[in-house]
Amino acid sequence: MAKFQIIEKELISNIIRGASFDDLILNSEEAFISYSRGRTVVPEVGHLQFIDPPGEVHIKYGYIRDQKYFVVKIASGFYENGLLDLPSGMGINLIFNQCSGELKFILADEGFLTDIRTALAGAVAAKYLAPKEIIKIGVLGTGVQARLQLKYLKGITACRNVMAWGRNSFSVKQLKNDLEKEGFVVEVTDKVSKITKNCNLIVTTTASRQPLIKSKDIQPSTHITAVGADSPGKQELESSLLQRANLVVADSISQCTNHGEIHKAFAEGLIKTEKIQELGNIINTKAYHRQDEDISIADLTGIASQDIQISNFIIDHL
Amino acid sequence: MAKFQIIEKELISNIIRGASFDDLILNSEEAFISYSRGRTVVPEVGHLQFIDPPGEVHIKYGYIRDQKYFVVKIASGFYENGLLDLPSGMGINLIFNQCSGELKFILADEGFLTDIRTALAGAVAAKYLAPKEIIKIGVLGTGVQARLQLKYLKGITACRNVMAWGRNSFSVKQLKNDLEKEGFVVEVTDKVSKITKNCNLIVTTTASRQPLIKSKDIQPSTHITAVGADSPGKQELESSLLQRANLVVADSISQCTNHGEIHKAFAEGLIKTEKIQELGNIINTKAYHRQDEDISIADLTGIASQDIQISNFIIDHL
Repeated sequence: MAKFQIIEKELISNIIRGASFDDLILNSEEAFISYSRGRTVVPEVGHLQFIDPPGEVHIKYGYIRDQKYFVVKIASGFYENGLLDLPSGMGINLIFNQCSGELKFILADEGFLTDIRTALAGAVAAKYLAPKEIIKIGVLGTGVQARLQLKYLKGITACRNVMAWGRNSFSVKQLKNDLEKEGFVVEVTDKVSKITKNCNLIVTTTASRQPLIKSKDIQPSTHITAVGADSPGKQELESSLLQRANLVVADSISQCTNHGEIHKAFAEGLIKTEKIQELGNIINTKAYHRQDEDISIADLTGIASQDIQISNFIIDHL
Repeated sequence: MAKFQIIEKELISNIIRGASFDDLILNSEEAFISYSRGRTVVPEVGHLQFIDPPGEVHIKYGYIRDQKYFVVKIASGFYENGLLDLPSGMGINLIFNQCSGELKFILADEGFLTDIRTALAGAVAAKYLAPKEIIKIGVLGTGVQARLQLKYLKGITACRNVMAWGRNSFSVKQLKNDLEKEGFVVEVTDKVSKITKNCNLIVTTTASRQPLIKSKDIQPSTHITAVGADSPGKQELESSLLQRANLVVADSISQCTNHGEIHKAFAEGLIKTEKIQELGNIINTKAYHRQDEDISIADLTGIASQDIQISNFIIDHL
């Protein structure tokens, strides 16, 4: 018999549901701090592309020194899965002993933990970067991630006013209903420019390959967290917005200059690495003191240390 | 409940044991042909290194176009595992639907399939490259791979004379005993130069980081298959031997110029890519007609298409 233990999604989601918000945020912060302090070994993300039907797979893997396990996460996005009655995103985390290579646990979370750790990262970014007083939260995209980002932002801000944008008016209405059950007051719009005009904290969660947010539309005193561009070719923010921003934060500078929002602006020479700060360094040094008018951007492409940390959280709570 | 099926090592090894040699060889040949004809999508191998205790992990992944599955293989080598009563090499193959990203099977083979497909590749290399009349087979290294290489060479050549070399005299004797049970006549030696003097088919299966075989020691009319150098820093053959050889064959030119036996000779300018042929092209075109005096070398670093093919073999025989 195989010697590893399979942890089912139901147990994993019970552990997350039962966890305190502060513990989850701390777990996420530690992922970024470890990474930025060089305590992690996380090679470049592996990518696989599929053409027909279109799909993509990311393999994120690595370890944090002096921990017990190394983690390999395989996550996929197949955007026509709806036709097969399957979720578009799936994933699994494999947990191996760092001292022997033995496979110890399979977290059969079906992508749930990727969703959670991505949403937690959004909350961490808002905690350190967003304006103190958040008037309205804008959200682009209508999927699981839109819901989860808002859910965890509740622990960061008292603001419950949301404006939501999506390509599909039916999906936006579903999102509105779901968020209202979570205690938000939600307006929907079919114009991104209404979001940028009314919201000073904006979260983008789409798989767009064309920029959705124009630089000229963004008001001063706005923070944007972009989580959609997790592989080459995806982009949610116009490159010139990154040039205009007062602060650009990356989960990983090396990764964000390879793909993500920063990548294109970087390739076009609109932004230099000196302008980019790593989230882990900001958390660790608390060095960013927001000026009133600042436009700040967090580009979160997802790093393996987040997968390692959230996997460890599950193992520690079994 | 997780929807994927776990295939245990016992069943996997029964399937391999029950398979015909010809089917296995054909399966392996197809791996190389697909790769060399560009029908595979196999990104660069992911590597993780561990320092204390020393270990390494390879992640090989990809797909063959128009097949049903994509495969991610995670294999590790922790060379002090003997102290923990664990095998040094372990591994697992994950089989996903190419059309949806769904995980369908976990082959919990513990590294067995890596060993098998590596040994099959050695047999394929001997089939297309070795001298017609094999006088004596030399083997360097005393592990599982040494045993398996010989086992599958039985299907390629009638020669049953073996000379074995290893650092540890006890291990060499164990190897001798095991091979004799398989019908070989085995001499052991503590001098690599005795192997090179007496054998015209030599298989190297060590994790050496220093060249073991000197160019000057190799006789004309010899074929060498090197399977040990599967990650950066490993080397079994002196670089100048690759310069001297009449034919140098790689499982993957791009991978072997990055690591493997060819890598160092390539970096030192002793060999150019034009001199290197890919195994898949040789199988496909049957273009290599051995000259009597030729020294040929096959550098097998292991490619994901082998893992894909052997995994498919198991799935097809469930």
